[in-house]
Amino acid sequence: MLNREFGSFAEFDSGYDDAEIVVFGAPFDGTTSFRPGTRFGPEAIRKEFYGLETYSPYLDMDMTDYKFHDGGDVEIPIGNIEKSLENIHGAVSSIVGDDKIPFMVGGEHLVTYPSFKAVWEKYPDVYLIHFDAHADLRDDYLGVKLSHATVIRRCWDLVGDDRIFQFGIRSGDREEFNWAKEHTTMEKFSIDSLSEVVDNLKGKKVYVTIDLDILDPSVFPGTGTPEPGGISFGDMTGAIGKLKGLDIIGMDIVELSPHYDNTGISTAAACKIMRELALAAVSEKFDRKEIEVE
Amino acid sequence: MLNREFGSFAEFDSGYDDAEIVVFGAPFDGTTSFRPGTRFGPEAIRKEFYGLETYSPYLDMDMTDYKFHDGGDVEIPIGNIEKSLENIHGAVSSIVGDDKIPFMVGGEHLVTYPSFKAVWEKYPDVYLIHFDAHADLRDDYLGVKLSHATVIRRCWDLVGDDRIFQFGIRSGDREEFNWAKEHTTMEKFSIDSLSEVVDNLKGKKVYVTIDLDILDPSVFPGTGTPEPGGISFGDMTGAIGKLKGLDIIGMDIVELSPHYDNTGISTAAACKIMRELALAAVSEKFDRKEIEVE
Amino acid sequence: MLNREFGSFAEFDSGYDDAEIVVFGAPFDGTTSFRPGTRFGPEAIRKEFYGLETYSPYLDMDMTDYKFHDGGDVEIPIGNIEKSLENIHGAVSSIVGDDKIPFMVGGEHLVTYPSFKAVWEKYPDVYLIHFDAHADLRDDYLGVKLSHATVIRRCWDLVGDDRIFQFGIRSGDREEFNWAKEHTTMEKFSIDSLSEVVDNLKGKKVYVTIDLDILDPSVFPGTGTPEPGGISFGDMTGAIGKLKGLDIIGMDIVELSPHYDNTGISTAAACKIMRELALAAVSEKFDRKEIEVE
Amino acid sequence: MLNREFGSFAEFDSGYDDAEIVVFGAPFDGTTSFRPGTRFGPEAIRKEFYGLETYSPYLDMDMTDYKFHDGGDVEIPIGNIEKSLENIHGAVSSIVGDDKIPFMVGGEHLVTYPSFKAVWEKYPDVYLIHFDAHADLRDDYLGVKLSHATVIRRCWDLVGDDRIFQFGIRSGDREEFNWAKEHTTMEKFSIDSLSEVVDNLKGKKVYVTIDLDILDPSVFPGTGTPEPGGISFGDMTGAIGKLKGLDIIGMDIVELSPHYDNTGISTAAACKIMRELALAAVSEKFDRKEIEVE
Amino acid sequence: MLNREFGSFAEFDSGYDDAEIVVFGAPFDGTTSFRPGTRFGPEAIRKEFYGLETYSPYLDMDMTDYKFHDGGDVEIPIGNIEKSLENIHGAVSSIVGDDKIPFMVGGEHLVTYPSFKAVWEKYPDVYLIHFDAHADLRDDYLGVKLSHATVIRRCWDLVGDDRIFQFGIRSGDREEFNWAKEHTTMEKFSIDSLSEVVDNLKGKKVYVTIDLDILDPSVFPGTGTPEPGGISFGDMTGAIGKLKGLDIIGMDIVELSPHYDNTGISTAAACKIMRELALAAVSEKFDRKEIEVE
Amino acid sequence: MLNREFGSFAEFDSGYDDAEIVVFGAPFDGTTSFRPGTRFGPEAIRKEFYGLETYSPYLDMDMTDYKFHDGGDVEIPIGNIEKSLENIHGAVSSIVGDDKIPFMVGGEHLVTYPSFKAVWEKYPDVYLIHFDAHADLRDDYLGVKLSHATVIRRCWDLVGDDRIFQFGIRSGDREEFNWAKEHTTMEKFSIDSLSEVVDNLKGKKVYVTIDLDILDPSVFPGTGTPEPGGISFGDMTGAIGKLKGLDIIGMDIVELSPHYDNTGISTAAACKIMRELALAAVSEKFDRKEIEVE
Repeated sequence: MLNREFGSFAEFDSGYDDAEIVVFGAPFDGTTSFRPGTRFGPEAIRKEFYGLETYSPYLDMDMTDYKFHDGGDVEIPIGNIEKSLENIHGAVSSIVGDDKIPFMVGGEHLVTYPSFKAVWEKYPDVYLIHFDAHADLRDDYLGVKLSHATVIRRCWDLVGDDRIFQFGIRSGDREEFNWAKEHTTMEKFSIDSLSEVVDNLKGKKVYVTIDLDILDPSVFPGTGTPEPGGISFGDMTGAIGKLKGLDIIGMDIVELSPHYDNTGISTAAACKIMRELALAAVSEKFDRKEIEVE
Repeated sequence: MLNREFGSFAEFDSGYDDAEIVVFGAPFDGTTSFRPGTRFGPEAIRKEFYGLETYSPYLDMDMTDYKFHDGGDVEIPIGNIEKSLENIHGAVSSIVGDDKIPFMVGGEHLVTYPSFKAVWEKYPDVYLIHFDAHADLRDDYLGVKLSHATVIRRCWDLVGDDRIFQFGIRSGDREEFNWAKEHTTMEKFSIDSLSEVVDNLKGKKVYVTIDLDILDPSVFPGTGTPEPGGISFGDMTGAIGKLKGLDIIGMDIVELSPHYDNTGISTAAACKIMRELALAAVSEKFDRKEIEVE
Repeated sequence: MLNREFGSFAEFDSGYDDAEIVVFGAPFDGTTSFRPGTRFGPEAIRKEFYGLETYSPYLDMDMTDYKFHDGGDVEIPIGNIEKSLENIHGAVSSIVGDDKIPFMVGGEHLVTYPSFKAVWEKYPDVYLIHFDAHADLRDDYLGVKLSHATVIRRCWDLVGDDRIFQFGIRSGDREEFNWAKEHTTMEKFSIDSLSEVVDNLKGKKVYVTIDLDILDPSVFPGTGTPEPGGISFGDMTGAIGKLKGLDIIGMDIVELSPHYDNTGISTAAACKIMRELALAAVSEKFDRKEIEVE
Repeated sequence: MLNREFGSFAEFDSGYDDAEIVVFGAPFDGTTSFRPGTRFGPEAIRKEFYGLETYSPYLDMDMTDYKFHDGGDVEIPIGNIEKSLENIHGAVSSIVGDDKIPFMVGGEHLVTYPSFKAVWEKYPDVYLIHFDAHADLRDDYLGVKLSHATVIRRCWDLVGDDRIFQFGIRSGDREEFNWAKEHTTMEKFSIDSLSEVVDNLKGKKVYVTIDLDILDPSVFPGTGTPEPGGISFGDMTGAIGKLKGLDIIGMDIVELSPHYDNTGISTAAACKIMRELALAAVSEKFDRKEIEVE
Repeated sequence: MLNREFGSFAEFDSGYDDAEIVVFGAPFDGTTSFRPGTRFGPEAIRKEFYGLETYSPYLDMDMTDYKFHDGGDVEIPIGNIEKSLENIHGAVSSIVGDDKIPFMVGGEHLVTYPSFKAVWEKYPDVYLIHFDAHADLRDDYLGVKLSHATVIRRCWDLVGDDRIFQFGIRSGDREEFNWAKEHTTMEKFSIDSLSEVVDNLKGKKVYVTIDLDILDPSVFPGTGTPEPGGISFGDMTGAIGKLKGLDIIGMDIVELSPHYDNTGISTAAACKIMRELALAAVSEKFDRKEIEVE
Repeated sequence: MLNREFGSFAEFDSGYDDAEIVVFGAPFDGTTSFRPGTRFGPEAIRKEFYGLETYSPYLDMDMTDYKFHDGGDVEIPIGNIEKSLENIHGAVSSIVGDDKIPFMVGGEHLVTYPSFKAVWEKYPDVYLIHFDAHADLRDDYLGVKLSHATVIRRCWDLVGDDRIFQFGIRSGDREEFNWAKEHTTMEKFSIDSLSEVVDNLKGKKVYVTIDLDILDPSVFPGTGTPEPGGISFGDMTGAIGKLKGLDIIGMDIVELSPHYDNTGISTAAACKIMRELALAAVSEKFDRKEIEVE
């Protein structure tokens, strides 16, 4: 199912058996409605990661102190959307089946659905923290049920009300914003209420999905549908820092479309957010392990 | 005079007779002194508008609830600046003659002069709210009287002192800044005093001109003369929200030069500002109409 | 089925009923395996066509002397490949049902299959002239039967041996080249044998498909999979000139991916090839009409 | 009138009084109808010239053996087309008044008119050799008489029939091609008849204007209106080599728009063509001088 | 040693003897480890400076009131790093030897070492204010002692502890951050403590080095190693304003790599920061001169 | 010495011990005088190779029938030119020491010197076939002896007269062209005499170096110093086909600078030339082996 192509994410160099977190790419953009190209996201991040500092001055942690494995890319048979999503689901099922934490790199946002589903099958009480510019709550998009524009609605189909927390949303149909009032917890535009949510989710299983277009297009232009008015990079790293206390059992970052940003700053931002999120997730696991050891 | 070429701005799909606001393009960049290309602004905005959400989460309003008409582009005979400006003036005169509100999409900033003049001819007591990075208050530019760099000075020639309010200005000659102290109300760098100005202009006729280069180049690089240190997109939408109470009888957005921004984020920002400004203007008219009906 | 969005191809301005040729866009790139983006092809060509001379100095013909209609774009529900192809098939069936000639603008090469199929259903004795860099003769591609890489093989499934003529092929699996020896007539690299083929097809119904990547990437870089070593623009217009004597009852040009060419030369080339092919096809019909009139 | 701004064209470093050829820039693009930006042509060529080899292996000549002067750029008051053309005319009048040869670097093609006019005023029997993709023979363009699209027609207004030789023309209205049959000598598409023309013009005064878009867009994409199907760089240098025998008393190269070519190959081609043309022109003068000295 | 090539920085037009500040370029990028191209920095800034307003609305000062000289570029023999650094050292020694203030435009950050060394040789009590995204405190980089990644460590070799003040640092090895705790004064991420530092350095000789990548990549993408999470342009100009009270005896701005930013906003930001820093430095000197005159 | 980073060139997947040809990258651009960036060449080619067809329709050979090994990239300590060249020399010495054929992917052209030297040390009677736009015969460049502009002169220092054959040369100093007349065999502009040279070198050991800028910039814009007037891709593949009969014991392709070509066509051309050259070289070895087996 996993297919190593361009080598590994640098510093994700542990063996699979040792690793706590298994990173993999899902280069799928089959339902992207505007500018395609997130299929090139994993490749771009791998290439850029090679030059990245392993030390985070934000968290004062270093990736070399932890164990990450790069499982390569899930195979995506272009033109067969159903099979592509199955392959993602299979990969994540296998990783959580081995009691490891999956960290998926998209690809468009629809890839979150099979990943989250596989995690939910193992942990049916999972909560979803969702960072995004878009609500992604349509019931269908041009008649299509499985779409980047419906993905959080499909996740809701699994877990129901009061389990999904949305941050930074600044674009959507009127109907989506109205639907959200009944079924999810949504903060429009910003992420100020995150601390409170984190406090409430302490001890719960949490899946984190970051659609990188939550960032302002000035710092992240390389995405399919840039939406001005986003949060800053500092806001995002601050938010990730707050996640440290949570029991994250799955996560993803999606929607980097590198060909639309020749300056490379979008990929640079994606890599740092990946580093911060991986460290935030593993720090919790590490603390927990220490306690278990005692 | 109006010449429909590339189809309509999506959602500006009412017939002319029904419409309250008539949108049109003025693809003129004949006096641009640095990087030309604002002639491609209307075309780029029309293309991008097609995918834009009609719902504004900022204003909680939806464009589908109002009536906009796209009148196409004014004909610009390249190499004949005088005739180009005449055509713009004629188009706006015709629109305001029909008691509709013109919304012009530039083109360079000089297009504001014939548009504002046509509005002023009907409403001689009109006030001008001017968002821009540049003062545009030179009396001439390299000996030329009608120029993007003199346009607000030419508007002042029409209305005189105490009628022009300038926001966000961060570039100009020393003489322009000194001249402004006597003749206009200028806030340098920022837009904090807008609320106060809006309070004072309640009940007055107002023309709003937004030179999009007031935005920071990080969010709006696609313009002829990018000036670092601009306001954020959130500042701009916030400012537009404050305009809701005003009696806007004409408006324009200018200086998008899309070829200088391959990422497309400048056009995305322009479209959203256009949506917000159109909604802010029509919301006022709609309230007024209700009162009139009663 | 047809959905007019961004206005018409300039000079394709006859009404549907009058028109001999009906042009439409098929903005589909759902099976593109390398760089996506041909979905933007019709839009780019429409925009560029506006400035194109209607007169061809190659053919000494002028588009204003003939009747073309732009039917807009076929609706493509992103994420539903089957339905997308159905919509294309329906549009072409309708056009040929009205005894008009369809001229499709892709999109990726797979769109040729539903278009050719609809033409073949009406004219089962149709021949296929295929210009391309790639053989497109795989039986499946990563397990997928309907793909840009299998499209000519799928057309062969309809018409069988001795009906397909391929020119300019310079890339493919060894198996494809071997298979072609048995089932199609293929000229590798160049198009020198076209005159002979045209002579043999005089009086036969012919469908012409031009994958624009037959052109050298130097003149046509804006495509998903550029293959160096292609034919020149002059070779291509020369080839089209030779097609004048044929009874073309359907045609398409595909694989322009404009975002990969910021210079715009690819779109310029596509427009001129479209003009030349439309004129070549209509010139034959015009001659035929004169004869019929007598 | 001349205004040195960005320093000199490298190797055009003689003083004005010594120089045989005076090079200057005319950064004017005020009537460009499609993509503007030729105003950046002189600046781009100067910058690139710095790294160019002075030796031409085509002509086996070296620029260091001759005397060229860079007079800087003509002042272009943006928004005042008439004055801009006057300034060019004045600069060329002054250069030919001093019995030197002007070599103008555009800017758009309209700059040829004031330059050619100033040369014609001194040498009323001058012939014009015109390399271009476009006929430029319209009598007016959108009602405008002085335009890049009318420039050769305006030159004809000065010299009349049988004095203009056009090469490489591949785009224009049907009317232009028909008009040319009566009034100029035009070779469509190619330059094969140049040798014959050169033979006939031996001993005559000749002005050479090269619209660089005669080159194929593959080698020269950085221009306002790229037209596929142009001549190769080798064809162009070959043509320039043939000009060596002529008495060139004025020349220009126009229509480089460098911002539309991020690769820089257009500017590289322009520089080499400038070097070749300057050497071809001076080689003739040098021979003549030798004879005069004796 | 100095070699005038592309003409002068506009408004740096005083003669050398008159000038208080001597600006020069150091187009060196010989140790850049990721994306090279800062060699094009001086050229890009010179070209852009031509259109820049001389008046600073931030400082309410105008460059035309002061005397700056542009000394051209230091010669950089590509492939000879040692000699390149020697040439820079020689240029700065000569400038400070004439009691003028050097203002160097890089190039990569390593150029600061020979410049700072020459200043330190004359003023051994000099302090260093360092704005940067990177700590640049490695002792060696891949075994190389003189590198953009070691440059501040090399400066420390000269002046020792308590003389270096670092601001905005957000990337580096864990070891660098730890080393800084002992040997420099470092503010991570931001520049809030600058006022305090300035107060303490009143009356001391200060060298200011600005690695422009301290700016957020959104406003300054054109650099070798963009690091998201930087300070804003307004923060930077605010910081420069605070430097006005200091006795600046040398300064530089480095790491503009213009080819990586086709929008040009990075160069625009660099020019304005250069203007602000030059004005801040000269304002202090001017005050001092007044006192001396008395 | 060899350091595998980004994974392997696809289809260069044999183990080292089995392989006949060992491919490796030399990402060095330390003496590039104009536009740097060839350091990104190996990475770009590896990424692109993944999608390349293994079958060559030119040679009717398939890479899957032969054994290639990818040894990764030579370590390049940025800022230490001497050590970088030593590392390349060491890698090639090791490969030829194992009786394998090195195939180096640059990097700038200077990398050919240490590679050729290592081959020459084993095979002192080696001949050099050199494809290039530039003569590269300077004795020094700005005082530097080891430079991309001197590399063939340095190779001549090793082997002397009558051993170097240069093709396609179209740029250089007058002195270089004159020097070549005495010491090398040079064909200017084209490659017509290659067949004759190949005939004469039958049975001799040959090293082939291809500076990809021999190609016309239209098909290969992504290089440091594009020179218009180059050979076509078809010419180049034709030339490689002629090399089949030779005993190639070392080879390289250099000077791809991928960041200067956003369309990707340069990398596509480089990959195909690499495939053709590898197949041409191995075909000879395979024939030889067959004979040996008997």
